[in-house]
Amino acid sequence: MEIKLKTKVWLEADGEKLFGDGPCDILSRIERTGSLRQSAAEINMSYSQAWKLVQMIEDNLGYPVLDKQAGGAGGGHSTLTPRAATLTRAYSQFRREADHQLDLLYKKHLAPALKSGQ
Amino acid sequence: MEIKLKTKVWLEADGEKLFGDGPCDILSRIERTGSLRQSAAEINMSYSQAWKLVQMIEDNLGYPVLDKQAGGAGGGHSTLTPRAATLTRAYSQFRREADHQLDLLYKKHLAPALKSGQ
Repeated sequence: MEIKLKTKVWLEADGEKLFGDGPCDILSRIERTGSLRQSAAEINMSYSQAWKLVQMIEDNLGYPVLDKQAGGAGGGHSTLTPRAATLTRAYSQFRREADHQLDLLYKKHLAPALKSGQ
Repeated sequence: MEIKLKTKVWLEADGEKLFGDGPCDILSRIERTGSLRQSAAEINMSYSQAWKLVQMIEDNLGYPVLDKQAGGAGGGHSTLTPRAATLTRAYSQFRREADHQLDLLYKKHLAPALKSGQ
């Protein structure tokens, strides 16, 4: 029996979802690739689904996250707005360190308790 | 706008839910009060709902969590099995320290990023 710690983390503003792992993932990919189309393909999402996701992220945050430059047939080049880039990097760093701390605490408290009970 | 960090944490075994905040809460109350009935009342649950919850917890864990002693009209006295008590205490401690670490990381990474964007 393989036991795993599962976690969900997100930000809420006045009880409404503001930002979380999904938004952080797509925005990080856009920042890395410079392309909404390529980012969508990486996570097996259609371009229109990814576009809707970005619009939902903008609705939730209340500000634009993409500086979109019109391109040719390739679909243009997308970069994050400074505000979205700041949030995305901070959230990524937060999530990485949170996962590490949770793993340490799992090993400290839960792994021994689960083992002693077997 | 008040921004809050929200988290969900649980344990899975082979992809199935094993234990989490809800089970830990009711078992902690039973350990403290010695009574399933009183624990149920504290969280506005009926006795039969709480009993079903305990049975679900036992199904998920695969072992008994309550040493139930038959009582009189009061409904008897309930204590946790040693194995359930060990897990409940370890999970509580894990959750408390995890919340603390997540709060520190929120203040380190997210609070400044959310502030700088305003």
